[in-house]
Amino acid sequence: MTRQLEIAILGAAGYAGVNLVRLALSHPNIKIKALGTRRKDGEHLREIWPQFLGSPLPPLRHIDEIDYSSVDVAFSCMPHGVSAQRLSQLTSPHIIDLSADFRLDCPETYAQWYDAAHPCPDLLSTAVYGLSEFAKEYLPRSRLVACPGCYPTAVLLSLLPLVENGLIDTTRIVINALSGLSGAGRSGNNSHLFSEANESVQPYNVGHHRHVPEIEQELSKRAKKTVSISFTPHLVPMTRGELTTTVVELCSGVSVDDLQTTLSSRYDCDPFVYVLQDDACPSTDMVRGTNNCVLSAFSAGPPGQAVIIAAIDNLVKGAAGQAIQNMNLLFGFPETAGLKSAPLMP
Amino acid sequence: MTRQLEIAILGAAGYAGVNLVRLALSHPNIKIKALGTRRKDGEHLREIWPQFLGSPLPPLRHIDEIDYSSVDVAFSCMPHGVSAQRLSQLTSPHIIDLSADFRLDCPETYAQWYDAAHPCPDLLSTAVYGLSEFAKEYLPRSRLVACPGCYPTAVLLSLLPLVENGLIDTTRIVINALSGLSGAGRSGNNSHLFSEANESVQPYNVGHHRHVPEIEQELSKRAKKTVSISFTPHLVPMTRGELTTTVVELCSGVSVDDLQTTLSSRYDCDPFVYVLQDDACPSTDMVRGTNNCVLSAFSAGPPGQAVIIAAIDNLVKGAAGQAIQNMNLLFGFPETAGLKSAPLMP
Amino acid sequence: MTRQLEIAILGAAGYAGVNLVRLALSHPNIKIKALGTRRKDGEHLREIWPQFLGSPLPPLRHIDEIDYSSVDVAFSCMPHGVSAQRLSQLTSPHIIDLSADFRLDCPETYAQWYDAAHPCPDLLSTAVYGLSEFAKEYLPRSRLVACPGCYPTAVLLSLLPLVENGLIDTTRIVINALSGLSGAGRSGNNSHLFSEANESVQPYNVGHHRHVPEIEQELSKRAKKTVSISFTPHLVPMTRGELTTTVVELCSGVSVDDLQTTLSSRYDCDPFVYVLQDDACPSTDMVRGTNNCVLSAFSAGPPGQAVIIAAIDNLVKGAAGQAIQNMNLLFGFPETAGLKSAPLMP
Amino acid sequence: MTRQLEIAILGAAGYAGVNLVRLALSHPNIKIKALGTRRKDGEHLREIWPQFLGSPLPPLRHIDEIDYSSVDVAFSCMPHGVSAQRLSQLTSPHIIDLSADFRLDCPETYAQWYDAAHPCPDLLSTAVYGLSEFAKEYLPRSRLVACPGCYPTAVLLSLLPLVENGLIDTTRIVINALSGLSGAGRSGNNSHLFSEANESVQPYNVGHHRHVPEIEQELSKRAKKTVSISFTPHLVPMTRGELTTTVVELCSGVSVDDLQTTLSSRYDCDPFVYVLQDDACPSTDMVRGTNNCVLSAFSAGPPGQAVIIAAIDNLVKGAAGQAIQNMNLLFGFPETAGLKSAPLMP
Repeated sequence: MTRQLEIAILGAAGYAGVNLVRLALSHPNIKIKALGTRRKDGEHLREIWPQFLGSPLPPLRHIDEIDYSSVDVAFSCMPHGVSAQRLSQLTSPHIIDLSADFRLDCPETYAQWYDAAHPCPDLLSTAVYGLSEFAKEYLPRSRLVACPGCYPTAVLLSLLPLVENGLIDTTRIVINALSGLSGAGRSGNNSHLFSEANESVQPYNVGHHRHVPEIEQELSKRAKKTVSISFTPHLVPMTRGELTTTVVELCSGVSVDDLQTTLSSRYDCDPFVYVLQDDACPSTDMVRGTNNCVLSAFSAGPPGQAVIIAAIDNLVKGAAGQAIQNMNLLFGFPETAGLKSAPLMP
Repeated sequence: MTRQLEIAILGAAGYAGVNLVRLALSHPNIKIKALGTRRKDGEHLREIWPQFLGSPLPPLRHIDEIDYSSVDVAFSCMPHGVSAQRLSQLTSPHIIDLSADFRLDCPETYAQWYDAAHPCPDLLSTAVYGLSEFAKEYLPRSRLVACPGCYPTAVLLSLLPLVENGLIDTTRIVINALSGLSGAGRSGNNSHLFSEANESVQPYNVGHHRHVPEIEQELSKRAKKTVSISFTPHLVPMTRGELTTTVVELCSGVSVDDLQTTLSSRYDCDPFVYVLQDDACPSTDMVRGTNNCVLSAFSAGPPGQAVIIAAIDNLVKGAAGQAIQNMNLLFGFPETAGLKSAPLMP
Repeated sequence: MTRQLEIAILGAAGYAGVNLVRLALSHPNIKIKALGTRRKDGEHLREIWPQFLGSPLPPLRHIDEIDYSSVDVAFSCMPHGVSAQRLSQLTSPHIIDLSADFRLDCPETYAQWYDAAHPCPDLLSTAVYGLSEFAKEYLPRSRLVACPGCYPTAVLLSLLPLVENGLIDTTRIVINALSGLSGAGRSGNNSHLFSEANESVQPYNVGHHRHVPEIEQELSKRAKKTVSISFTPHLVPMTRGELTTTVVELCSGVSVDDLQTTLSSRYDCDPFVYVLQDDACPSTDMVRGTNNCVLSAFSAGPPGQAVIIAAIDNLVKGAAGQAIQNMNLLFGFPETAGLKSAPLMP
Repeated sequence: MTRQLEIAILGAAGYAGVNLVRLALSHPNIKIKALGTRRKDGEHLREIWPQFLGSPLPPLRHIDEIDYSSVDVAFSCMPHGVSAQRLSQLTSPHIIDLSADFRLDCPETYAQWYDAAHPCPDLLSTAVYGLSEFAKEYLPRSRLVACPGCYPTAVLLSLLPLVENGLIDTTRIVINALSGLSGAGRSGNNSHLFSEANESVQPYNVGHHRHVPEIEQELSKRAKKTVSISFTPHLVPMTRGELTTTVVELCSGVSVDDLQTTLSSRYDCDPFVYVLQDDACPSTDMVRGTNNCVLSAFSAGPPGQAVIIAAIDNLVKGAAGQAIQNMNLLFGFPETAGLKSAPLMP
């Protein structure tokens, strides 16, 4: 008498979408009812992603032709802007959105960073920010979950416990972030072609990446004051994985050991966050294909500074995995349902 | 009342070993009783492979200090030579060997290709060659299973049905094989360093790869005559995956469609072998991380010739996955138990 | 009083084009007079390829607005079809075409493989096939040089001396070819995105690659009879480099040593073709960034068979480098002018 | 009557060594007199690096058996410790050392970071720190040049002009650094194997990388006060290339435009340093295979902060190229002699 949720996945053919499909297929409580698309209806996902050979999947259907009334939860992997517009019309009981549309509390901030008025500010005010480890009390009551961006996931897991406990100077946070190319999505940008991305490190959107206001919003809420950050993202020549290196200044009397202890105890009961010990250092291969986040704080730089390194798989904990984790929490399933697999090694 | 097998994995820290551990951890019928090593006893596998964070695993123990009497099946991922020598002393009821030691029927052939006398020719005569799809009738009765090499797995799945049905000229088989670097193991060879393997294709052991006699032996058995092949392996700059491109000459009156039909019907009931249709072409990303083999035959070259392309993950269907599949068949578990996951995309 | 040629490069912004620009910049006898484009006129090549920082280059101009009368030689890196159409209108004394348009002698064969009637069959009949090592007597007299395809370059350098000397069975030639992604050009195909090409081997155009008729034409001319081949190309996850593995059957009484000797003596005076000795095996890192072709023949397969392996850089000896080499031969410059650099290591 | 220097390269078979050999081969004023090695004497460099096919090179000789009296300049690519010990015995008129042995002015600092007393503190006091763009007045008088580390080269080119002009707060410098695997040398570390480095970002030596004291020393000299930095290096899955992202706080009244202007004017006459304009962003593909450093400053982070990004090829400007540049400056050759080639694209 395990409960079976019927789900729809909108924007199923993109990188986040197929990862959600992949995880849903092995989740004990999920039945994929519909796979929605805006442009590829009539095709089968297997034609686009032959990796689904042998997987039982419904055909792709136009998102306007899905009967949402019979669906328990709709996941959206559609682009920002499009996502909010479409989701505002859905009748499904629950919505888990992987786009950026419901992450920023303030419509004006959204307008400023996403170059367009928010399509549905009323709905926005009802959204829960779904950084799972910090949303456990809100998720069970929510209709609309906004899944965090990939970079914010790694950065906030690194910093929120430190900010909450007043351990670091919130005016001096410097974040350097590295992502595999899958973070750039399935775009036709020449710089994402194998021949041009390979053997190159490419910083991008320096000083104006859209994850900045998202990170600052969440840090500010916990710090109870306005926090501004330095954040520089880079694409590195790998497909999956994300690593953030955050330099902080310790408040007076605080040691790096305090950071480690605080992080360890904060995540002690969280099944997906691991705080490494004994100077072991996170690297992205430790988490590839998993919903894990691996963290560690190091003494580095002048006295009073520290470095916190976090690694996640951008398409799992940074996207599809965290969406499933949020669904588990929302419906009261075990938090790890469908999400416990060891990384692919080597 | 699901039966739980207690297993030991010897040579657990190498590439095949950790993949076996990974698969065993999510298998519903397996309890890992012991992880054996020759050199790293006293360490924990997590110290070598931090990817196992959070996985419940016993510590590494020296292979001589494991109590095999309480183990249902011992898997060996030890190097050839070592493997046979140690396995000949084991008392466990069943042995599944991933080394090359029990693949060749004839000790003289072994001596010729492996530069040493076979350590236990008596035991050799009891081994079943565990190409799962062709061993289903023998596995349930076996004590010792010799898992095929990675290249032989892809090549034999491509060719055995064609040879059995007399569709191709067995005197003119040309195989070109490509493998990711993990196929070369965890050796210290400079040419396997990232900086030297990256951006390079490296043919190796041209004319004398040890998988040649293994392929020829199995083809000869099915053809009921001596078959000799041309086989050229290459390392390509990727971690996982293997692709074989086999050129054959059709027997008189045989068409490429006949090859496709024969392959499709032969593997119709096999859950891990997929014969693509409509000129879809296998590539290694289709199978990465899975136990699948994807196959297709093409009309190519002068009239009367064809090309058969096969893709596998060298560490799963080419090693650890097939070992588990053989265990499933040996003990009467569902063939796919612990082995059904969609590939990591992209 | 070194002679300075004034050259135009048409299609300068693609992969072959920028490699031609790069080589031209360091050639002692070349002055780049014009860089032509069909779509990017008004831009500077440095805006598209910032690698040209500091290099003195004229701006990109529309190919119709270049004064060809003042140019000694025009190189075309435009796509097939377009190239022939435009080149038929040029007035420059010499043309070196890197497209496929003037490689096939017979307009009907062109129509069959390129899906369109040849734009200028009259001009076609005047073209010299510019496989440099085999065109040295024709190039000095030529107005129009058709540079070979990348695969044909590697394959023909492997086989022509053997075919000319009657050493191999021309009815049984099996070629397996591997290319880096740059061989696929700057297209927007999803399968060429880093995230989808990385960690994958992708066979393509199996049985119908357009280099097949080109290879067959040249082999047939030397063999003085119709030669048909089996040719299977694959994309492997690297940017540059091409490796061909050719399996042949030896004529009666011929040994692999005979092949080696024939190849060695044939290329003894050719500065860019190296025949390795002592079982050393070509790999693409040996030639990356150079105009070299590295070759070797191996005893492999059943008695009477051999394997010949060849490695080139697809964008140098397979494209821009050979074009310069042809220019050197055409104008009587030293064959290696502007082309002698050691590979980038590692 | 161009002057020909006779040079010896010690430690010729490592990554820095072969890059020095490669550049020396095409330098108009260099004759390679000797290639020294500690372990491979008797071999030929071509046996280890077949890329040197066709290059005229002397055989490898033991470093103790080279006649240094006939050599104008000896380059050392030997490991630290070994290098100083051996160089202290050399009789050659000039020495250019690529190891870390003569970079730190103070033997005590050396002892602290390199775990051993300095082998020859007297010689140390005579060394010139060869960051070419800042050493032009000292190099012509020098006997011993210490080439900077790869990271210090990129970081110091980013920061020295800003520190000299008092534009940034020297107490708050945060550097994040990325290097290709060739930066780790030809070691047998498992984490540098293709299969384990590929698809992973690996931070290393967090808080205690040996380039920290070197960077701090040079910054302190220019700032005329003690400067401490935060520096976190990472290995990213590519062979060549290095990118540093440096976050600084601007002094009161200073703008990012001031940084750009200062950098641009400082390097205006330096042939290898390019300051990008118009928000163009450095990436490592812009400099692969060249001696160039590409720089740019960006407005990013909270008001008053900026980011400076620099890209170099770690084996050229970060090692062998800068060594040649220093030789050019030492002997009065044109600074760019033997060093002007466009990057390999794509």
